[in-house]
Amino acid sequence: MYTPKHFSLHDDPQIASLIAAYPLALIVAATGQGLLANHIPLLADGDGFIGHVALANPMHEAIAADSPVLAVFSAGDGYVSPNWYPSKAQTHRAVPTWNYRVVHVHGTLNFSHEDAEKRRVVSRLTTVFERQANGAEGWRMGDAPADFIASQLAGIVALRLRVIRVEAKAKLSQNRAPADVDSVAREFETRGDPALAQAMRRRD
Amino acid sequence: MYTPKHFSLHDDPQIASLIAAYPLALIVAATGQGLLANHIPLLADGDGFIGHVALANPMHEAIAADSPVLAVFSAGDGYVSPNWYPSKAQTHRAVPTWNYRVVHVHGTLNFSHEDAEKRRVVSRLTTVFERQANGAEGWRMGDAPADFIASQLAGIVALRLRVIRVEAKAKLSQNRAPADVDSVAREFETRGDPALAQAMRRRD
Repeated sequence: MYTPKHFSLHDDPQIASLIAAYPLALIVAATGQGLLANHIPLLADGDGFIGHVALANPMHEAIAADSPVLAVFSAGDGYVSPNWYPSKAQTHRAVPTWNYRVVHVHGTLNFSHEDAEKRRVVSRLTTVFERQANGAEGWRMGDAPADFIASQLAGIVALRLRVIRVEAKAKLSQNRAPADVDSVAREFETRGDPALAQAMRRRD
Repeated sequence: MYTPKHFSLHDDPQIASLIAAYPLALIVAATGQGLLANHIPLLADGDGFIGHVALANPMHEAIAADSPVLAVFSAGDGYVSPNWYPSKAQTHRAVPTWNYRVVHVHGTLNFSHEDAEKRRVVSRLTTVFERQANGAEGWRMGDAPADFIASQLAGIVALRLRVIRVEAKAKLSQNRAPADVDSVAREFETRGDPALAQAMRRRD
């Protein structure tokens, strides 16, 4: 990914927070049948990420063990008009751009059909995502009948992404004057994108 | 991309609208240095899409002419808790999932350094994106000094993506009862994601 220095994110806890807040990754692999991509929720786990796919999803057969893959996490985006820069009225030297935050995780992928691993993965994902969504009132696997959970587990394949390299980019108008940044953030807020506006103000 | 029948989108105008509303594509290519991905705004143009990248972005050198690439357009996403299904209280036979809409465009990519093509591409993108953002008050290339636009054009490379195959997926709880769909849409609205809620109600 092309990342000019002022848009590069190096802070590991910040990158981890961004992934945790936007966990739906696009996993891409180059296969014999061309580029294959699927959106899969991922959760940090040890030296990588865990997740699962449907048994009916051919990706677990198309991607050989230890294949290189790229997982891209995206934290929203928005078009930036030059009209939104107060400085533009003076100089007229501005062009449109786009703001966004992304994390690219390069790694290797492996799948597991083992019941214990599938159960562990689903349990961890459920615990974390339910806590984020519903706090202490979150759904638990134990809320469903055991035979139902067993049938659901039979229909999935667990996966583990081992991380080789992480690149993160936060394109948030850091190359503009503070008044321009404030003005664009206000536009995002007005237009219904408070998350991007907040990120611009925090500069993360 | 794995797409169960009930989540598959086949309506071309609907797919075109989705791309037009979420034009920031992730363009992925398999290169000699591994998988390479960059977020680039794209605009439909003839038999494909046009866009541009910074001259400093190595992707226009790393991706050979006519290389196969995948462009992924994403229209937001959200976690779906089983607790949000009214039917869950009766049966307890539900598990978490994720709703999202994506379009995968498989095609071939070419870059152009020609000034006329770069000017045409920037002009078209600017016209369309500015109209979406600011209506009749939109910024125009002519608002900026000619020497400034010339210097900006010198710093970019135009691209054209010729389309080979399009796959689109709208995962919007279409496999759930209407009461479950309504309830999940309400949750998305309450949690600040009206676009996904509206898409669920329209079932697009």
